[in-house]
This record gives sequence, structure tokens and C-alpha cells, in this order.
Amino acid sequence: MEKIVGIVVAAGKSKRFGEDKLLINIKGMPIVYYSIRKLHDIKDIEKIILVVRNEMLEYYKEKIKDWKLEKVYKLVLGGEERQDSVYNALKSVDFHCDYVLIHDAARPFVSIKKIEELIKFCTENSLSAILGIPVKDTIKVVDNTTKRIMETLDRSKLWIIQTPQMFPFEIIKEAHKKAREENFVGTDDASLVERLGIPVYVIEGEPFNIKITTKDDLLWMEGILSKSELV
Amino acid sequence: MEKIVGIVVAAGKSKRFGEDKLLINIKGMPIVYYSIRKLHDIKDIEKIILVVRNEMLEYYKEKIKDWKLEKVYKLVLGGEERQDSVYNALKSVDFHCDYVLIHDAARPFVSIKKIEELIKFCTENSLSAILGIPVKDTIKVVDNTTKRIMETLDRSKLWIIQTPQMFPFEIIKEAHKKAREENFVGTDDASLVERLGIPVYVIEGEPFNIKITTKDDLLWMEGILSKSELV
Repeated sequence: MEKIVGIVVAAGKSKRFGEDKLLINIKGMPIVYYSIRKLHDIKDIEKIILVVRNEMLEYYKEKIKDWKLEKVYKLVLGGEERQDSVYNALKSVDFHCDYVLIHDAARPFVSIKKIEELIKFCTENSLSAILGIPVKDTIKVVDNTTKRIMETLDRSKLWIIQTPQMFPFEIIKEAHKKAREENFVGTDDASLVERLGIPVYVIEGEPFNIKITTKDDLLWMEGILSKSELV
Repeated sequence: MEKIVGIVVAAGKSKRFGEDKLLINIKGMPIVYYSIRKLHDIKDIEKIILVVRNEMLEYYKEKIKDWKLEKVYKLVLGGEERQDSVYNALKSVDFHCDYVLIHDAARPFVSIKKIEELIKFCTENSLSAILGIPVKDTIKVVDNTTKRIMETLDRSKLWIIQTPQMFPFEIIKEAHKKAREENFVGTDDASLVERLGIPVYVIEGEPFNIKITTKDDLLWMEGILSKSELV
């Protein structure tokens, strides 16, 4: 069987949020718990690496034990940017690994079903794939200085990207290494692979798999929680 | 003072929704009520045209009276597509009008403050402008047949577009006329103006000004309603 390692990125500084959004409580547990738990519940994921900030290291060491998340076998320190954090995790893998599945700790609502779909697609086809949903709004390119609209995009081809994102281990590690060497910073892991001309596919996810980024997202969270089976 | 007419587009078939989403009840009143009401509460908007489907004409005739929305002085029948509906409304204007402010009936949560900001910008500068919010997710261009990612867009310039959208009356009427003559269908009104090379500006709106399009949006609605001053 293929060896799959999960990486949960919990090293953000919550710049756009103010406080540590990952510790916001949902039904008695912090957001980050649910995000790890989702990967933990997948049989095919054997081990999980959790990437955290230095000042949170002791907190997570203790909590991982309390929460009985035994698959989390390693805590890795995050870097300056999200991309550095993921790279630190990839470099820390010290055993044979076929695939990694990278997930934002701020996405607690992803469904087990979709993670399993993603794993099936990647392992059966030896490919990279990510979750996303088709854009339903009109998206325009705007000049940020003048605020004049430059272009209205053809939304029929646009997708909003989520995590998890899954890749053959050697491909994503190499992509991160190259990005670092060439000072390329992408907004997600897939973009680092795409720029090498290596195909990445999208699997249709679910709209409620949101990333808690700003205070406004707490409004969406309230709505999602009204559909209680999501966490 | 400038004459401003509001157009509320309530002629959609709720294709993506199933039932008539505009009649979904929020605190005792249907969604469409709040969308009209927001424009009605703006002092500068003198008259409102409501665009409806033929089978809903009697319903709205009665309700507009019940709801005491006196500024709604005309009900106009919608066309096949949203764009046809707006054009029908524009053609029906039979008095001098300087600006029109076009709003989706499925956006009940827009704030009065933002509508006023939009009106101020357009009337002071004699320009067209629309509400929107910066994209915070990663957006990719995907080949819809193979589902392979073709490109990751530079999100720093991307905006999600909302309504209201406001235009000098003669400009938007001409833009709709030309689009029709040239069989161009856009996903919003601004795109019809943009394609003529006429500048349209974006004003930063609010994330909760969502369009109720699919059943999933009802989840967001629950969240928004937990912040109760929005309707």
C-alpha cells in the first residue's frame, strides 16, 4: 500500500485575524483540532506532521496527547511564510513516503468523503490533485491604484482553490526546493508544481470547506455550524 | 439634484435553486422585500422599477402595496436572461433620469452605507461604479473537460463583484442596446459598459452582501442572520 503522510499547517500568524484563529472554540474544541482530526480519521493516512509556531510548541505537544491524535508523530517549526512552513515539514520526512496530503489548519469543515476522493484519484493515477469549487460570482481584474476595472474574466473556467492538496512526495518536495532557490512565492502548494509544467488536477469539493481568515468568516462559521454534522 | 432610479431584478427562474429563492422568509418577510427596502430607504433614490416574471406579476402588485414601498412605481416583465430583464427596465424609463442603480433582488444584506458611498462616488464624478470585494482565495483557471489546472491567477488584482451597480443612465442604456445588437451576453451590467472602453470603478463593499443562489447559500444566510442588524 502507498504510504501517505498528512501535513497540517498551523503556523500562520493570523495576520488578517488579530488573535490566534486556530484556537477559536467550536463545540468545546479549537478549530485546529477538527482540521487535524479529519486527516486522522482517514485510514490511508499513516502519519501526520503538524507545523506550528515556536511559541505554540509546548501548547501543541500537550494537546496532541490530550486529544489522543496518535498519528501526529512530529511537530515541526513553521517558517516566515506558509510556503516556508510546508517546506520545513517536507524536509523533515525521514522515512519512505509516497504521497503527502497538505491541509490548512484553518479549514476544519472539510469532509472525510472529499479527502477520500482526493486520495483515491491521486493514488490510482499517480497524479497531483487539489480540492476546489467552481466560481459562481463575476470576477474582475482591477487596477488597485485607480480601482478601475481592467477586465471581466470568463468565470466558466475559474475555480476557487481549497485544501487538502495532494502530491507524490518527490514531486512536491522538488517543487518547493526549486521555488525556494528561484525566490518564487505562490499562494498555494499546487502553484509550485504547476510552474514546473507538471499536471495538477482539481476535484470538486464543497462550499463549506472555508478557510477561517478574517473575523467575517466567523459569520460563515455560525451558518455552517447550524448544519451540525460538519464537525 | 440628480435623478436616480433604482432597478431591482427579481425575474430570475431560480434555476440553480429549485424553488423561488426570493420568497424565502427572513424574520417574517421574504428576501426580495429586504432587497427592495434597502434602495427604498435611500433618500437620493426617487423611484424604483421592479422586474418580475409574468407569473409573479399579481403577487408583486399586491405585495408592493402591502409593504408600503411607494417608490416602486412600475413593475416590468423580465426577459429570458438577466440581461434582457435589465434592458426591459431601462427601456421602460419614460421620464428624465440621470443615473440608474441596478440591484439583484437576491442580495438582501447590502448595507445602506455602501449604497450611499456608491451614489456619492458616481454622482460626484459622473462615473460608473459597482460594489465588490477583493478575492482572498487562490483562483485558478481549469480546463473543464480534463479538470487540469491551466493557470494560477494573480489574486492581488482580482475582485468578486456584487451589486448594486450604478451608471449614468444614457451610458448603461446604450451599452445594453449595443450588447443586444451584437449578441454579447455578460455576467453583469458593468461588463457591457467595460467592453465599450468606458471606465467602470469598483468600490469596496462588504463580504456579507452575498447573492442567494444555491441551497448552500442558506448556510451563509444563517450565519449572517446571527449578526442581526443586517436586515
